[in-house]
Amino acid sequence: MPDDPTPRGSEEDRLIARHFRPLAKDPGAFGLADDAAILAPPPGFDVVLKTDPIICGVHFFPEDPPEAVARKALRVNLSDLAAKGAVPAGFLVALALPKETAEPWLIAFAGALGADADRYQCPLLGGDTDQTPGPLTVAVTAFGLVPHGRMVRRSGAKVGDRVLVSGTIGDAALGLRLRRQDATAPWSALSAADRGHLAKRYLVPEPRTGLAGALLADATAAMDISDGLAGDLAKLCRASGVTAEIDVASVPVSPACRSVLRARPDLIDVVLTGGDDYEIVCTLAEVDLGAFRAAAASSAVAVTEIGRIVVGTADPNFRDPDGRPRRFQRPSFSHF
Amino acid sequence: MPDDPTPRGSEEDRLIARHFRPLAKDPGAFGLADDAAILAPPPGFDVVLKTDPIICGVHFFPEDPPEAVARKALRVNLSDLAAKGAVPAGFLVALALPKETAEPWLIAFAGALGADADRYQCPLLGGDTDQTPGPLTVAVTAFGLVPHGRMVRRSGAKVGDRVLVSGTIGDAALGLRLRRQDATAPWSALSAADRGHLAKRYLVPEPRTGLAGALLADATAAMDISDGLAGDLAKLCRASGVTAEIDVASVPVSPACRSVLRARPDLIDVVLTGGDDYEIVCTLAEVDLGAFRAAAASSAVAVTEIGRIVVGTADPNFRDPDGRPRRFQRPSFSHF
Repeated sequence: MPDDPTPRGSEEDRLIARHFRPLAKDPGAFGLADDAAILAPPPGFDVVLKTDPIICGVHFFPEDPPEAVARKALRVNLSDLAAKGAVPAGFLVALALPKETAEPWLIAFAGALGADADRYQCPLLGGDTDQTPGPLTVAVTAFGLVPHGRMVRRSGAKVGDRVLVSGTIGDAALGLRLRRQDATAPWSALSAADRGHLAKRYLVPEPRTGLAGALLADATAAMDISDGLAGDLAKLCRASGVTAEIDVASVPVSPACRSVLRARPDLIDVVLTGGDDYEIVCTLAEVDLGAFRAAAASSAVAVTEIGRIVVGTADPNFRDPDGRPRRFQRPSFSHF
Repeated sequence: MPDDPTPRGSEEDRLIARHFRPLAKDPGAFGLADDAAILAPPPGFDVVLKTDPIICGVHFFPEDPPEAVARKALRVNLSDLAAKGAVPAGFLVALALPKETAEPWLIAFAGALGADADRYQCPLLGGDTDQTPGPLTVAVTAFGLVPHGRMVRRSGAKVGDRVLVSGTIGDAALGLRLRRQDATAPWSALSAADRGHLAKRYLVPEPRTGLAGALLADATAAMDISDGLAGDLAKLCRASGVTAEIDVASVPVSPACRSVLRARPDLIDVVLTGGDDYEIVCTLAEVDLGAFRAAAASSAVAVTEIGRIVVGTADPNFRDPDGRPRRFQRPSFSHF
């Protein structure tokens, strides 16, 4: 509860009180009326920590709706928590706002952030607001809980493990190209529904929160795919001291993505290396496949086997249906 | 230990590996080679959460040394943890770097950040690096530990409590004016040592980490002074449903500050309302004063009684030696 329902402090205090205090329903937030927040993990649990800020003009477009910005800011962090097998426990948000940020923008942003906090049971615990001469930036730091010592690492993949991914791969990377009206792609061949699907997958990630329990129970290694399947799987393999054989034809794609690939088969490279999937890639011992599939099904997240872990130190081999390995010009997305 | 001593990933991965992995010595950091970090609080402890980013051109000057930027970025957060009675447990750092950020800048920044992490026993646990079209921004999220339910709040001050502050007040606000060569102030009347003192107090805060235990044991309320003593004490009083009588002559000032005030007594308003002190204001029952003073002395942090808590809802009364209340034009610093 707010300690101070009618703040007389600075404009920053009033902004926080007006837009964000209504979201701070968790007792550890102290109604955003203290200097810090509290997270009280239950005995035997570790706190998983993640911060992944999003910057206007880098991670989202200036004209993106404030609701989409709020959702992306929180969800890119929830995606990491899910991949680590963690249940969301709360978040901090640090906002850097240009002077011209309008009240309606903030109202819509805070509303969507609060709705997502409720949806993912991840309460706003605290934060900070600054005025910036630069681009609008939303820095969420999210906290999750895992049983002590059980965070799902990148480094546990074993030779013989199966490689699985959640959902569908490549939609967001195509959605970004569509957004930029990349002239080389066959956008006009797509239905409006397909275009809408790709655009939305770029705009608002769907963190696979429902998969966290199954990953915790069964995965030997996992990470979320934010910089492209090929590059992120390579990171997982390097951390585990192994490599992988991937069957490109098995990589799950959406109907919209399939329509694009029918017209332009070469865009499979964009699908496999583009960013912003926010799906999960994980590895499992064969013996645990059944239990994992059952748990994933019960949380309504599709999972697809795409290959297996093998001995080696090279980057994973992505094999085309004819058995030939693909060579990527740029296996991983990077802002640098 | 790094899982991946020779990363082949993106430029971001290489930047992290080169400059920040050597700092990530805590096991919860996983050598910065996973997607998230772990904090494992001991049983019976709450995690205190704080994020306070600093932005170039807002919180520091473009020409500030990278070492000073690193120290300020971490210390403004450690200051809050100390005020809440929390022992530092670790931090995340999210960097937004302009394209032109040079390698030597990063080397110096990371070196100073690592030295401060060691000094305050607050290990780097994780973070994120982005390239930004905007100003360089360093967003630290810091974690502290307090016994369950014991975080020192803003809201516990009781009528009759004494009001104390740590260190000296106003140095940083004068240091900022000096930095800006504010023509109205008598800088030429100051010795080089006095000018150096004020400038340094603005450039690099000294978080009162040593006072955390004493605050936890004895304070009824506390907060760090980042937006000016008058405004921050007003916030503490409002959160507690009380007000305060403050004796302006008791407010501790440094010899450098005293030199300024001798030439320009009116600058007392800047001293009492300027930002960036990063001292602590707290309230104590009279009976606990002795124990608190002894504990503060043993941690070598000066504490000074400046007034007492009284019944009321108005802003605290700052009384001049002649008994007249001061009126501040702008009681609290705000970036908005």
